[in-house]
Amino acid sequence: MKKIINPDRKEWTAILKRPTTISESIEETVASIFADINRNGEEGLKRYTEIFDGAAIDDVLVSETTIAQAEEQLPEALKKAIAVAKENIEAFHSAQKVTKKVIETTNGVFCWQEKRPIQKVGLYIPGGTAPLFSTVLMLAIPAKIAGCSEIILCTPPDKQGNVNPAILYAAQLCGVSKIVKAGGIQAIAALTFGTETVPAVYKIFGPGNQYVTTAKQYATKFGVAIDMPAGPSELLIIADDSSNAAFVASDLLSQAEHGEDSQVLLISTSEKVLSEIEKELALQLEKLPRKKIAQKSITNSKLICVKTDDEALELINEYAPEHLMVCTKNTDFYCNGIVNAGSVFIGNYSPESAGDYASGTNHTLPTNGFAKAYSGVNLDSFLKTISFQEITANGIQNIGSAIEIMAQEEGLYAHKNAVTLRLKSLK
Amino acid sequence: MKKIINPDRKEWTAILKRPTTISESIEETVASIFADINRNGEEGLKRYTEIFDGAAIDDVLVSETTIAQAEEQLPEALKKAIAVAKENIEAFHSAQKVTKKVIETTNGVFCWQEKRPIQKVGLYIPGGTAPLFSTVLMLAIPAKIAGCSEIILCTPPDKQGNVNPAILYAAQLCGVSKIVKAGGIQAIAALTFGTETVPAVYKIFGPGNQYVTTAKQYATKFGVAIDMPAGPSELLIIADDSSNAAFVASDLLSQAEHGEDSQVLLISTSEKVLSEIEKELALQLEKLPRKKIAQKSITNSKLICVKTDDEALELINEYAPEHLMVCTKNTDFYCNGIVNAGSVFIGNYSPESAGDYASGTNHTLPTNGFAKAYSGVNLDSFLKTISFQEITANGIQNIGSAIEIMAQEEGLYAHKNAVTLRLKSLK
Repeated sequence: MKKIINPDRKEWTAILKRPTTISESIEETVASIFADINRNGEEGLKRYTEIFDGAAIDDVLVSETTIAQAEEQLPEALKKAIAVAKENIEAFHSAQKVTKKVIETTNGVFCWQEKRPIQKVGLYIPGGTAPLFSTVLMLAIPAKIAGCSEIILCTPPDKQGNVNPAILYAAQLCGVSKIVKAGGIQAIAALTFGTETVPAVYKIFGPGNQYVTTAKQYATKFGVAIDMPAGPSELLIIADDSSNAAFVASDLLSQAEHGEDSQVLLISTSEKVLSEIEKELALQLEKLPRKKIAQKSITNSKLICVKTDDEALELINEYAPEHLMVCTKNTDFYCNGIVNAGSVFIGNYSPESAGDYASGTNHTLPTNGFAKAYSGVNLDSFLKTISFQEITANGIQNIGSAIEIMAQEEGLYAHKNAVTLRLKSLK
Repeated sequence: MKKIINPDRKEWTAILKRPTTISESIEETVASIFADINRNGEEGLKRYTEIFDGAAIDDVLVSETTIAQAEEQLPEALKKAIAVAKENIEAFHSAQKVTKKVIETTNGVFCWQEKRPIQKVGLYIPGGTAPLFSTVLMLAIPAKIAGCSEIILCTPPDKQGNVNPAILYAAQLCGVSKIVKAGGIQAIAALTFGTETVPAVYKIFGPGNQYVTTAKQYATKFGVAIDMPAGPSELLIIADDSSNAAFVASDLLSQAEHGEDSQVLLISTSEKVLSEIEKELALQLEKLPRKKIAQKSITNSKLICVKTDDEALELINEYAPEHLMVCTKNTDFYCNGIVNAGSVFIGNYSPESAGDYASGTNHTLPTNGFAKAYSGVNLDSFLKTISFQEITANGIQNIGSAIEIMAQEEGLYAHKNAVTLRLKSLK
């Protein structure tokens, strides 16, 4: 890790720069696969699955029988752990429901909002080294609570054409409607246009590599909404001498093992605290099974010593971390002052992995500084807000002339006339 | 208007098709202007303003003096009307604030959400035939309530380099920080990259023509969020014999006058109702100052007679109108059943123009079927939701083993270790 002591404000931009790179050439690939899937549907989807995943599959949908068998393949302990996580995620996301609140803005003018589910949603679950069944929980549970009627999950199959049973088990447990054996760009294209068996959806959720991320961004051109742009995972920890060096080091490493492009930042007003954590980190790194990955991402990472808490807070808000851990005495100062972050973990017993799996909060969060404008996935991500208004005869008499004047000034005479006619009828 | 009687379900897609066209060539123009502004900043911005708006300007920011003088140029009646609208919009959007709700998902595991303003936002206000000061109110008022600290408004100047005083007045009244004399693609590029005087923003809001819409979509490639994709405005009215034919006709026309590509749809289970409204529409159209525009968009529009209320509701949800007016006896049936719509107007005294100007609801709404996945602009559009968690020693003991098991199954051993270390320390 690079240690930086009291950096000048002018250096902040360079210090906080993320190690991400975007390749223009990916978009051409995305465009050509989208055009292909749009033209050839299911046949194209299977063809790319054979090319990219090495799996020749007859049916892109996982069968009911296979889904039913998944449960038997999982150890009891894992099923119990998933049940604990599910219960907490449900409790947290159910509490996000809001009740209708009618506002009488002027006498006789009643306005309110109501939320409705996005009817068809697509959930993307990456394949690769680890079966991310936890992401199935994080996306399917709020989709179900929101009342989405079609929840389509896409995930790449292995070379034998199979999907990990933990993903199948979590999906059926959370009420996923269909599980599609497809990954990468072709999966996002199938969700965008629909195929013979994959329904086109209105919004696509979930993490993915650069190909998936570029494909999701490209899908918006065709009117499909997406949860948020995604980048490599990241964690920023602010620590003082009330923190536990071993705990903090373990959290930095748990972030670093995600991928070689993950980034971790540690900030403190004390050089001593930084050094202690650095020592612990070196010790723990040696014992990690994913040492190679973690070591690589640790080189992208920085220990930063700043002079004051105010400066630390400013630096944090400038970086806008996906995950922020506050391991300091003055937690209120940081929690009240944080403006840009995805998810905040407070104190010595709130490791980031709690939020990744089982505390109840969502782990699909804005990376790459997107926390400056985006929220993480939550219940609202699966809902739309519709506004309603009901105006009485008296109400239109109260606001009618304001509407007439404004409409006239904007040169919209039919807008004015719609009010004038009503006011005249009430005279 | 085209009259369609009892269409077969197979024909729905064709009937509900919007008259929009997207030109690929616009994106090339957008890309080149973005690159230019990114490279040349302010100089580029002024150059395009001269090319596209015919205005040679020294200072892209409207001066304090000019803003202060705007108030004197407006008639008192307009200022009063704006005050009425502002009060209602404030009341409706302030009521959307939520209070923090801490959920104890498991004993000792405390999770909650807090909302924070998006610090820097850009508001785009189109120029053209009408000065859309109402859109200034609709965007700047919720931005201010949310607590956005920099609110940058861009709007194209006229050939003399001036901005309509009604726009300036509304902007200063609602707390806009800077008013930039720039429109079109170049304004969106300036908000994306920043220039010498225009700050780069995190999210861009507001309507615009195809160039602006394509530019906003393009801006997302650079990490800037946008409110929603936009298309021509549209209105769907469901009416029965309890509706007032003259009122309904006036509402259809108020939508139709927006632009030649606006679309209006009228649905009823009664042919007689459709015919009466059609007659009224012909009469009122003759008297409109913007008759030419309205007439053109009326040709894009349809009267549809369906057999049952159920079929009508299905058709409405399939279309997903930006504005929906419910002028029927069974309003509850439609209001409870609507899933896809931007804003709903109920009864004979709730014209769409009320929501456009002064009832309090927002008029920046999803068009082009985007109501299937997007909400209209509301207070939340200017806020991000951050999740927080604070877990006690007892709390991590309660959920720790679930996290350990799940992390291990996903092959993330450092995630597991972060919990194991804490659990061991508590033994």
